[in-house]
Amino acid sequence: MKINVEKLKKIVGENNVSDNVVDLYVYSSDASVHQAMPSVVVKPRTIEDVQKIMGYANNDKIPVVPRGAGSGTSGHSVPIDGGIVMDMKGMNRIIEIRPEDMLCKVEPGVVDDDLNRTLKPYGLFYPPAPASSRIATIGGEIGANASGVRSVKYGATRDYVLGMKVVLANGDLVNLGSNTRVHSSGYQLERLIVGSEGTLGIVVEATMKISPLPKFRCLAVANFKELEDAGNAISDIIASGCQPSLLELMDGIGIVAVNKALDLGLKEVGAIILFEADGNVKEAVDYEIRKIEEICEKHNGTDIEMSYDAKERQRLFGGRKKLFASLSKYKEGIICTDLADDMGVPNSKIAETAKKIHEIAKKHNVIMAVYGHCGSGVIHTKIMLDSKKQSQWDEAARVIEELYDYVHSVGGVTSAEHGIGLSKAPAWKKARKDIIPMMRAIKKALDPNNILNPHKIMDAPDDWVKATNLRYRVIS
Amino acid sequence: MKINVEKLKKIVGENNVSDNVVDLYVYSSDASVHQAMPSVVVKPRTIEDVQKIMGYANNDKIPVVPRGAGSGTSGHSVPIDGGIVMDMKGMNRIIEIRPEDMLCKVEPGVVDDDLNRTLKPYGLFYPPAPASSRIATIGGEIGANASGVRSVKYGATRDYVLGMKVVLANGDLVNLGSNTRVHSSGYQLERLIVGSEGTLGIVVEATMKISPLPKFRCLAVANFKELEDAGNAISDIIASGCQPSLLELMDGIGIVAVNKALDLGLKEVGAIILFEADGNVKEAVDYEIRKIEEICEKHNGTDIEMSYDAKERQRLFGGRKKLFASLSKYKEGIICTDLADDMGVPNSKIAETAKKIHEIAKKHNVIMAVYGHCGSGVIHTKIMLDSKKQSQWDEAARVIEELYDYVHSVGGVTSAEHGIGLSKAPAWKKARKDIIPMMRAIKKALDPNNILNPHKIMDAPDDWVKATNLRYRVIS
Repeated sequence: MKINVEKLKKIVGENNVSDNVVDLYVYSSDASVHQAMPSVVVKPRTIEDVQKIMGYANNDKIPVVPRGAGSGTSGHSVPIDGGIVMDMKGMNRIIEIRPEDMLCKVEPGVVDDDLNRTLKPYGLFYPPAPASSRIATIGGEIGANASGVRSVKYGATRDYVLGMKVVLANGDLVNLGSNTRVHSSGYQLERLIVGSEGTLGIVVEATMKISPLPKFRCLAVANFKELEDAGNAISDIIASGCQPSLLELMDGIGIVAVNKALDLGLKEVGAIILFEADGNVKEAVDYEIRKIEEICEKHNGTDIEMSYDAKERQRLFGGRKKLFASLSKYKEGIICTDLADDMGVPNSKIAETAKKIHEIAKKHNVIMAVYGHCGSGVIHTKIMLDSKKQSQWDEAARVIEELYDYVHSVGGVTSAEHGIGLSKAPAWKKARKDIIPMMRAIKKALDPNNILNPHKIMDAPDDWVKATNLRYRVIS
Repeated sequence: MKINVEKLKKIVGENNVSDNVVDLYVYSSDASVHQAMPSVVVKPRTIEDVQKIMGYANNDKIPVVPRGAGSGTSGHSVPIDGGIVMDMKGMNRIIEIRPEDMLCKVEPGVVDDDLNRTLKPYGLFYPPAPASSRIATIGGEIGANASGVRSVKYGATRDYVLGMKVVLANGDLVNLGSNTRVHSSGYQLERLIVGSEGTLGIVVEATMKISPLPKFRCLAVANFKELEDAGNAISDIIASGCQPSLLELMDGIGIVAVNKALDLGLKEVGAIILFEADGNVKEAVDYEIRKIEEICEKHNGTDIEMSYDAKERQRLFGGRKKLFASLSKYKEGIICTDLADDMGVPNSKIAETAKKIHEIAKKHNVIMAVYGHCGSGVIHTKIMLDSKKQSQWDEAARVIEELYDYVHSVGGVTSAEHGIGLSKAPAWKKARKDIIPMMRAIKKALDPNNILNPHKIMDAPDDWVKATNLRYRVIS
């Protein structure tokens, strides 16, 4: 593939194009295990830049991979076919905040935490809150349909997208959705774009619903001797109609890891549950917390600690917040991989799934931590293994297969909030054969030359290990 | 077009097919002004029936129009090209209610109120609540992305669809979405189907999120001398971060109409606002009601009445509930039309839009009532006119044009919750030219023979008056 770098420089300016190998290397990977070199990196500054780049790429059939922070763990932004990586971080203006309409308009490169910092003085917030909010961009969050600790009450990115401007594969600009809370005016294309991982169009502006910040938040932690009890408590909390604003699980492996990494002195029990309620009236927050507390106690939860105070809440949540970074401390000589990190299961299957993960790990002689936003069925895991032994990698491959087979058999999904990309594609394709033709038909209709983030999701290689170089991350 | 009625009878049984002209006439119209005769009506009982019918229709290129209760006001289910009307009301099983997963699975013909009656003993409800919930089916509500009085807090149908089974134009069955609260596993095709008005596939099963019924509901009514004050109060309520579970406007014309029709003895002011708050803790409900009350008073709202009692709430809401049926009583000799009934505007534009509607009506010598779920920007109107005078119909056409031009100019949408169908298509097409090619590309990809509810939304005729027979409804 021959790329006319001079032409790209004319569009976006000399400083916003690079084919220097050092730059290309930076853009060759994201937070997944994958790595593949782009041919060139381009940083558009305006919608017109994006349109012109796409017009050129479509004409010359050059792959274009849009990219935000590169914090995705499934390989969405790894340019498996080379071509152009389009770095959207330069388009990072918060265009408007309209408290009177409870919406904001942003460019795709706006960082989630920056948006929330800007909204705070208005008494507003943007709820999805993925764990990577410190760096993740709104455009990337739209691509992955990101969610996080608040999804149990507030939902995922798809629930906040009111409208968007999208540049299509051929360079056309379309205005999708509306400025209104509800609409029934043509196909809900804005919701089709959410979660499409950059394969259908490039989001160049997003209109997002925002919410009033609650006056009170109370966070609590409960200890459980048995992981299964904690899982059952979570299922029961949801089934009882409680409305926590956060409901997290962390297993004993996670507790040991954060104790080692952060010296927190947490009691090393089978699992902890963290739960929060929020609202404008303290009595209502108390009521939710009390109801959840009772359910925890019914399931043998003990040592329940809680606080309304912001600093105290931060302390209580500290271990969970830093869990991912701490996991590699669990045991000398192991690394912590994202190979199967993000399943979703129906609420009633949480205890069973957590137990199953530990069983599978034991059977295959790897370590797996279980945690996640279990209140909305999100189960995160990390497969922890000795990266120097090939046998461990072989076991990991078997773990992945068994784990996804189990999750799909109970009506769960391959990915709850990280996306399919490359690494989750083989398992997802196996489970969802029926919808692949429909997805391919839509992809072909909107991107006939297959230039937008090609060979991802339904078109990803069946063997993700061979699909790209692998970049095993050793977290220390 | 030749239709093999015997073949259809073999698929669904003799009693579930009719080409009798009396039956065809019943299926020739919905709640809109449109009327066009189908060639045959078929009532599938199973998913396999639907697959076989579609396989046959696709092969022989016969249009198929799926239909629920026929309560749509835009002509979605009017068979403009003849062909098969597929009546989905026979597929009306509530397949399962899973409180433990906060979801239910239903066939498309389940009536909204029936579902809610079934959910009530579980302490659960299905929130979208369109005004036609007594007859509207879940399949039809999905087709229109229906919403209603609760959308200000609970959202629209699109916010409740977790997954669905859909039969595509070629008869293939696909399983879209998930059984989980969040998912990031392939395109969110389930949300693309919502609001697609039967043009992309036939929903044969839906997995819907359900919600816990709140313990307390408090409904209140406030009078306003001036419509504009009422509109400004509504904007201010939302902008202030209040979270009403219902926030309705009804103008003076509506008040006079319900007084005449129902002898309610309401004070004939410029407008009333109805607002409700709900929750599990009375203090929190009181807090919301008090906050909203204060804002109403700030905008000259008076005579505020409120109640927690179910019967009292019914009384307070009675006028609004029966408004549509009462409007034709407003003045002797007029009929009440759905010609432009369902705009959506940004929250801050409610007062301006309400005022504008009255201005346009006055200018063109027709009567227009303004009401709706204004808390979520939904503005309903009815154009009321003397149907015997051609001049009145001519004025109505000008009203429609002016009204939609205004709504689009302030960033509003053609339809907030009723859909585009036939009658809203000309205005919508004029405003949203940019997305028509994208919608057509998707339509063509999924229905290459254009047999699924053809010539609707983006493909509807530009002159809806000539598009079908017109069936002017005289409500008496």
